[in-house]
Amino acid sequence: MGSVILDDVLAAAGRLEGVARRTPIVTCRTLNELAGAQVNLKSESFQRTGSFKFRGAYNALSQLSEQQRGRGVITYSSGNHAQALACAGRLLGCRVTIVMPRDAPRVKREATEGYGGEVIEYDRDETSREELGIRLAAERGLTLVPPYDHPHVVAGQGTVALELIQDSQPLDLLLVCLGGGGLLSGCAVAAKALSPRCRVVGVEPANADDGAQSFRSRELKRVENPDTIADGARTPSLGQVTFPLILEHVDAVVTVSESEIVAATRLLWERAKLVVEPTGALAVAALVAKRVEAEGLRIGAVVSGGNADVGAVSRLFEEA
Amino acid sequence: MGSVILDDVLAAAGRLEGVARRTPIVTCRTLNELAGAQVNLKSESFQRTGSFKFRGAYNALSQLSEQQRGRGVITYSSGNHAQALACAGRLLGCRVTIVMPRDAPRVKREATEGYGGEVIEYDRDETSREELGIRLAAERGLTLVPPYDHPHVVAGQGTVALELIQDSQPLDLLLVCLGGGGLLSGCAVAAKALSPRCRVVGVEPANADDGAQSFRSRELKRVENPDTIADGARTPSLGQVTFPLILEHVDAVVTVSESEIVAATRLLWERAKLVVEPTGALAVAALVAKRVEAEGLRIGAVVSGGNADVGAVSRLFEEA
Repeated sequence: MGSVILDDVLAAAGRLEGVARRTPIVTCRTLNELAGAQVNLKSESFQRTGSFKFRGAYNALSQLSEQQRGRGVITYSSGNHAQALACAGRLLGCRVTIVMPRDAPRVKREATEGYGGEVIEYDRDETSREELGIRLAAERGLTLVPPYDHPHVVAGQGTVALELIQDSQPLDLLLVCLGGGGLLSGCAVAAKALSPRCRVVGVEPANADDGAQSFRSRELKRVENPDTIADGARTPSLGQVTFPLILEHVDAVVTVSESEIVAATRLLWERAKLVVEPTGALAVAALVAKRVEAEGLRIGAVVSGGNADVGAVSRLFEEA
Repeated sequence: MGSVILDDVLAAAGRLEGVARRTPIVTCRTLNELAGAQVNLKSESFQRTGSFKFRGAYNALSQLSEQQRGRGVITYSSGNHAQALACAGRLLGCRVTIVMPRDAPRVKREATEGYGGEVIEYDRDETSREELGIRLAAERGLTLVPPYDHPHVVAGQGTVALELIQDSQPLDLLLVCLGGGGLLSGCAVAAKALSPRCRVVGVEPANADDGAQSFRSRELKRVENPDTIADGARTPSLGQVTFPLILEHVDAVVTVSESEIVAATRLLWERAKLVVEPTGALAVAALVAKRVEAEGLRIGAVVSGGNADVGAVSRLFEEA
């Protein structure tokens, strides 16, 4: 598979124009004071389907042939890519099948079905979602649209950084959460092309640090079924497309603890007034936990999604 | 006291420039589909101190004399005006004393003290906050900055509608929550001057319908200590400044039930991804409960504030 360059991100932006939402940049004084910096929160919680995933899913689906779209697509996802693809499928007239873990958050499953996606459940401990997805694709003649490891998905996600840089003053630092690396690699491609002096840092749960290990060793490492509340970062490894892009364009990968993720989520709910899921708080967690040099900088932090169950998050805060 | 006209709102906008936040307009497809309309949510939850109240408080405080500011100010408030005035006081170097009910939400009290405001508690069943505020003002030589019934406060709140109309296409309908009427009257002044064909509707809890009663009878009615989760609308009556402005510029006042307020709050959290307090969901509740003709219209709905306790709101949803 080919790599991704700025032109791909710009082409994706063209396809997404008038379809995806240009999400607002939100600021929060408390966060600025904690970080000693000017932090621009690119709030993809307001994106269609509640996360940045819509960008990549729509960009990928819109480039399939009529014939491929007619047969339908399949994917595996812990939730946000599922909703995103289901929504993109509805817009483009394409049937979408989703392989989803049995323990995926209720709101994510309901929303996926609400967009007309067909959900097939699997048990995290018994099968890998990739294997099941690939098998079903072959059996049913469906095209697989993977959640991150595809150049069209990466290019779509890169439009997050494109908009953030267009809508704010030049950035010194861009913080992006890291699961499979679709968002991070796409954003890094865009940021380094548009704003070469901007440092790009990926943020991962310490409990799911395959990306940090891979980045350090320059070899693709895996962490199977990691135990983290940041369910969007439970991907076992970076991908064949995303890993080389991350090695080329990203400056550092840092990790945060579970309690740091909860604290950042809480800050975003209580002070920034944003409904975010724990994965969406990873970038901010790196700031609050001082994992990066931030003092005096102009920072972009991607808040990747807002598909959280209010009751579950409330319990998380009470237990903290 | 004098009335309020568009020029006062424009002058307030000048004072607030670079101090208050120009809050984003958020859209939500689910809400649009429910309403059969294009709904622009003016999200004052992202305003400094978490609600629109900062606008009026700062506009009022910045027009006091040096001497008045040197002696300090006092107010009574269920919370949002308190935080707002405390924050404005800090910015303008003015001591702020707040008379607050003993049962005010924890987050609101903590935030007020966090901005350096001095809180004096009272018992809702024993005293009226107005009496206590006026008595303490006299005893201590403080200037009273009331939460809504003052032209400078009203003019400040009117900047919400000013920005909403500037940042969106022309509106057919503007929905604004109604407590003491500061926000509604200010917004109505601005909307009717800038966009005369825009219908302006106030939305009140049915359990605290003093405004609807007053509007209907054209006589100031009171509802004492109303039982509503929309704590920002627990004010017993409209004011000497706000009532005439509402009679002159507002087209209708509608009411919503407690369960409709909860449903709208839930929609805003779960689908629009906005942390809003129940009072902040009143305007949207009127849409969801079909209390206004909305079909095909371009609508502005003010989401007035986001100072909600996540645990309390979660319990509200569970009980619904």
